[in-house]
Amino acid sequence: MKQKRIVEAVPNFSEGRRPDVIQAIVDAYNSVDGARVIDHSSDPDHNRTVVTIVGEPEAVSEALFQGIAKAAELIDMDEQRGEHPRIGATDVVPFVPIKNVTMDEAVQLARDLAKRVSEELGIPVYLYAKAATRPDREVLSKIRKGEYEGLKADLEAGKEERFPDFGPPKLGKAGATVIGARPPLIAYNIYLTTDDVSIAKKIARAVRHSSGGLRYVQAMGLLVEGRAQVSMNLLDYTKTPVFRVTELVRREAARYGVGIKSAELVGLIPQQALIDAAQWYLQLDNLTPEGILENHLE
Amino acid sequence: MKQKRIVEAVPNFSEGRRPDVIQAIVDAYNSVDGARVIDHSSDPDHNRTVVTIVGEPEAVSEALFQGIAKAAELIDMDEQRGEHPRIGATDVVPFVPIKNVTMDEAVQLARDLAKRVSEELGIPVYLYAKAATRPDREVLSKIRKGEYEGLKADLEAGKEERFPDFGPPKLGKAGATVIGARPPLIAYNIYLTTDDVSIAKKIARAVRHSSGGLRYVQAMGLLVEGRAQVSMNLLDYTKTPVFRVTELVRREAARYGVGIKSAELVGLIPQQALIDAAQWYLQLDNLTPEGILENHLE
Repeated sequence: MKQKRIVEAVPNFSEGRRPDVIQAIVDAYNSVDGARVIDHSSDPDHNRTVVTIVGEPEAVSEALFQGIAKAAELIDMDEQRGEHPRIGATDVVPFVPIKNVTMDEAVQLARDLAKRVSEELGIPVYLYAKAATRPDREVLSKIRKGEYEGLKADLEAGKEERFPDFGPPKLGKAGATVIGARPPLIAYNIYLTTDDVSIAKKIARAVRHSSGGLRYVQAMGLLVEGRAQVSMNLLDYTKTPVFRVTELVRREAARYGVGIKSAELVGLIPQQALIDAAQWYLQLDNLTPEGILENHLE
Repeated sequence: MKQKRIVEAVPNFSEGRRPDVIQAIVDAYNSVDGARVIDHSSDPDHNRTVVTIVGEPEAVSEALFQGIAKAAELIDMDEQRGEHPRIGATDVVPFVPIKNVTMDEAVQLARDLAKRVSEELGIPVYLYAKAATRPDREVLSKIRKGEYEGLKADLEAGKEERFPDFGPPKLGKAGATVIGARPPLIAYNIYLTTDDVSIAKKIARAVRHSSGGLRYVQAMGLLVEGRAQVSMNLLDYTKTPVFRVTELVRREAARYGVGIKSAELVGLIPQQALIDAAQWYLQLDNLTPEGILENHLE
């Protein structure tokens, strides 16, 4: 049985206000057979839209190119303003391996697309995350430092450490684009049985990587609809799984005399992350994909 | 997008020793396009083979008919002996709705197949489980009382309460077959952190339906490889879910000072049972099928 190969891509473009422009760009992302836009959401304050595309690798790459070309045509970075940091009309494009695709293959897709975008559209491209060519480009915020305006000035000043991986060391009105590959990201919020946001903040500090907690976890404490919330991004659920994060949050919460009221996902979760949780909680040491009925259907 | 309809069937036939006969019958089950044998296992002591077939409803029904015909040809119940209770060459055939098929439709498939088997093969058929026409035929053990020999004698004595739902009230060498519909069954064993089998037996009594425990749970306590095991069948995981059974076993075990070492599935588990467990343990109150990435792929 020949297995279908599936990648996801989550391009972010710098327009979240003009409905006609948003629709034209989403349509471009959705214009290729074999790739499908399954979600898109725009934030007017951020002036930004996030698109989720799934499909066969070649089709998704082609769809991304079409979307990037359309955004370059319709967005002028000299005029674009919004709360969210950005350096380009199409700001960032991560490839995410989903099914029968390795991370190495996703990295190659990112490099190939970066090359094509620079050559055919003249847009400077930076490789990031698993596709990064230098350690200081693994993290998006470092590439995006100073945003469009700051990057433009640095390139004009000839600062070589800011030169792109592909394309000219100079920004046009479409700015620059960051392309890369990463594991699926899980955006995950846990609501506590308290309205004391200071507890959520303490728990966030305890569990997140940056302050000594679990690797691949970003976290902050918020007050949402009158309830303390630990808001998290899980950057690699295969290494730092949802259940372990949850149980550490639960233990830290108990130390402050509170519990977990409920939890929610923002966006999509890979099915395997849920199956991993079931396996751990139920202690099914020997569960295999073959043990799941649906894996025997086409 | 037209959704494929999938049923599972788990026919049991009364041969677990002669490899050539087993293979011929499994081949018959596997001879229809659109239905596929995904598992079969034979037990020589039981002298019985369990086959798992999945596919489109019509194709699975046809495959079942072919398998039942072949077993009737190759197995002589006047000679067959084994540890497992049985009344026919093909002993029992449950239909299990898997995807885009309702239980009512599975019941109809069972009735249609029962009618065809009785008419074309002359084999008496009893309807059981959700397809039962009488309350006393919901449970297999009651239909199978006295096994092939006892049923044969009762029918010869003209006992009307034992007459089949379809076909002649009289057994030939193929015996009788029980056909029905049921939800997916999960065979689930929990190993305790003790070798004291009396604790496993006490827990089994506490959690099983027959002695006052959870509905849709059958359980017994065993000693398996030097470790106490609570061995269970979960007859309807949508009503009595795996996680609730597990947590009740855990609580009862704690009362005797022991814990759960690990758990195992025997055979296949429907994916939804694992996703339900993840949702419960992670407290993901608002998880929907749309929230799972794979459900957006074809």
